[in-house]
Amino acid sequence: MSWQIGDLSSEDRSRLSTLLVTIQKKVDEFLGYPCTARFDYSALFPFLSYPMNNVGDPFIPTLFKLNTHDFEVEVLDIFREWVHATKDGFWGYVTNGGTEGNMYGIFLARELFPEGMVYYSEDTHYSVSKSLRVLHVRNIMIKSQPNGEMDYDDLRETIRIHRDVPPIVFANIGTTMKGAVDNLDVINGIFHDLALHERYIHADAALSGMILPFVEDPQPFDFRAGIDSISISGHKMIGSPIPCGVVLARKANVDRIARSVEYVGTLDTTLSGSRNAITPLFLWYALKTVKFDGFKQIVRSCLETAEYATHAFHAAGIEAWRNKNSITVVFPKPGAHVVEKWQLATQLDIAHLITMPHVTRRQVHDLVDDIRDGGIDSTVKRTQQ
Amino acid sequence: MSWQIGDLSSEDRSRLSTLLVTIQKKVDEFLGYPCTARFDYSALFPFLSYPMNNVGDPFIPTLFKLNTHDFEVEVLDIFREWVHATKDGFWGYVTNGGTEGNMYGIFLARELFPEGMVYYSEDTHYSVSKSLRVLHVRNIMIKSQPNGEMDYDDLRETIRIHRDVPPIVFANIGTTMKGAVDNLDVINGIFHDLALHERYIHADAALSGMILPFVEDPQPFDFRAGIDSISISGHKMIGSPIPCGVVLARKANVDRIARSVEYVGTLDTTLSGSRNAITPLFLWYALKTVKFDGFKQIVRSCLETAEYATHAFHAAGIEAWRNKNSITVVFPKPGAHVVEKWQLATQLDIAHLITMPHVTRRQVHDLVDDIRDGGIDSTVKRTQQ
Repeated sequence: MSWQIGDLSSEDRSRLSTLLVTIQKKVDEFLGYPCTARFDYSALFPFLSYPMNNVGDPFIPTLFKLNTHDFEVEVLDIFREWVHATKDGFWGYVTNGGTEGNMYGIFLARELFPEGMVYYSEDTHYSVSKSLRVLHVRNIMIKSQPNGEMDYDDLRETIRIHRDVPPIVFANIGTTMKGAVDNLDVINGIFHDLALHERYIHADAALSGMILPFVEDPQPFDFRAGIDSISISGHKMIGSPIPCGVVLARKANVDRIARSVEYVGTLDTTLSGSRNAITPLFLWYALKTVKFDGFKQIVRSCLETAEYATHAFHAAGIEAWRNKNSITVVFPKPGAHVVEKWQLATQLDIAHLITMPHVTRRQVHDLVDDIRDGGIDSTVKRTQQ
Repeated sequence: MSWQIGDLSSEDRSRLSTLLVTIQKKVDEFLGYPCTARFDYSALFPFLSYPMNNVGDPFIPTLFKLNTHDFEVEVLDIFREWVHATKDGFWGYVTNGGTEGNMYGIFLARELFPEGMVYYSEDTHYSVSKSLRVLHVRNIMIKSQPNGEMDYDDLRETIRIHRDVPPIVFANIGTTMKGAVDNLDVINGIFHDLALHERYIHADAALSGMILPFVEDPQPFDFRAGIDSISISGHKMIGSPIPCGVVLARKANVDRIARSVEYVGTLDTTLSGSRNAITPLFLWYALKTVKFDGFKQIVRSCLETAEYATHAFHAAGIEAWRNKNSITVVFPKPGAHVVEKWQLATQLDIAHLITMPHVTRRQVHDLVDDIRDGGIDSTVKRTQQ
């Protein structure tokens, strides 16, 4: 027995139609979150008729055959090249999104260094303090610089005080609000200066992990720069109707914490047990069709739109700025109506526009006009006066 | 810019076709895992063209508008009725599957009782010991009875020894391998006898959470029976191409650990941050079309097939059995060829068939024939001689 749309009440059917229309309208005013709206996976929809599941380690055959592990492994290998991990020295899997990838990185670090202390800046994504709480790991929040980067003096002095325990640095490769990239060279320099040989760096590269591999002059961000694990989102720059991402880590570390599970005849190395098989296929499809050169073009275009937007804000007399290699344009928090209309993410007195592939110059102008008409948030005005 | 299937190399296109054919073939020999193959969500595929995301608490409006929170809340409310939570006294969300739901339950218990001790039987799903490790929570594995239920004498004596810390019982409402239901009345009796007023029960009802609400004489399994949280899978009895589930918990407990997050203008009460918006819609569609009476019929039919299969095994001289209200038929582990062909889950010397809605009597006979022809696993033979 299977069910049919005919079995829905007409009220429920019309609710579905209304939802679709609402989504279609709202996607035209979708400037505040780092998710591209440009993708088309309809060629893969036939796979959604089957109970597929990528349970377990993608690199190891399993008894559960309805999977896309082979495609997942190819996706991981492409990312591996982009973040310069060695072919035999890495492991990873496709996650349900950034939270899982970051939690995996911290979990791995904690298993390696149970007494380790996690350091992360105050500009770190809100989900990370939740993960630290879930993982019961010692941690200290480090001050940020105004541009969103970690305050390296604070980091150095704080690590120095806790020099008896291995440091685990949670580095932002593109902060959520300001797109700032923590400087891995400086962080490694601190380890070196303090003779800290047992150390771990996890890179949260949710958005910029799909920007920095494609620009001329990237900040240090990858395994060559000394990271031990990295989380990159799939639903942001690549695009996906279902949040997803990849996490990659040094294989030697992963092997130390793996455990065998007979039930599915595989290694239970992933945080999620059952994992969907369709997002690895989405990512494979995107990577295989857009390819390195395609993403290079897309990223260049996004950076140009960001630069264009910054100028448009300035021309309207609105202070706006962005970090190097960032498509996140920061400006004073506008009035509630504008925030609501354009689905802008806000924090304290700032807001941002993220010039994802679907964002047009026309939309940038409409936003700038709305802000000029609607004014900036009254709270911001007060603090600035 | 969007990409097209035309951009795939012909080699890659043929790989996709081959994958689809393989999946279609394998789904006909899919008897060992508790996932139904009978569903049709094609009416909802248009939503997969948009970057939707159910980030954050489904009950609270968010700035991120491309969501299906309203539908998610309805799904949760239907489950709430089925597991007898009170309308105003519960909270929950749609998860990425059983691991997340169970981890959420243990996390919640640990936050309430940081010194608490988790008790779980040796028949508990393998992902739980991983979650306990991730969550850094004190835990003791309890012996099981031969039928898969917890050994209550062992539980009672072990809790008695650790009477100084709140007990957190992880109860299996249907174990993975044998479909056994831990007896909540007995567990509550132990709490009562030992005067343990601070206590917590999480119910892992992955499969049986969609069986027991629909049978005449269910074992105690729900909020009326004293549980504090429950995890039920969506991709098992209901069916979904993407693993999913729901977790429900007592609202008063959840409120104590919630924290506000400005970035998305919502409460960050869910373990995953970004959450897909499509599986809540799948579940809504299934619940609205199949309805309580439909699931009652489906479950009755599955139980009949299980009973039929048990007889078919017996008729072939193969020892097979099942627990009350369970569609999991346990029998001696067959030879490797049969395990591989029918994708049977195995553990030590047993295997199981799960008579999900897609499993036919024809398939049951084919399996029984294959086992009779191929014999049982040589290791099992030796231990039985």
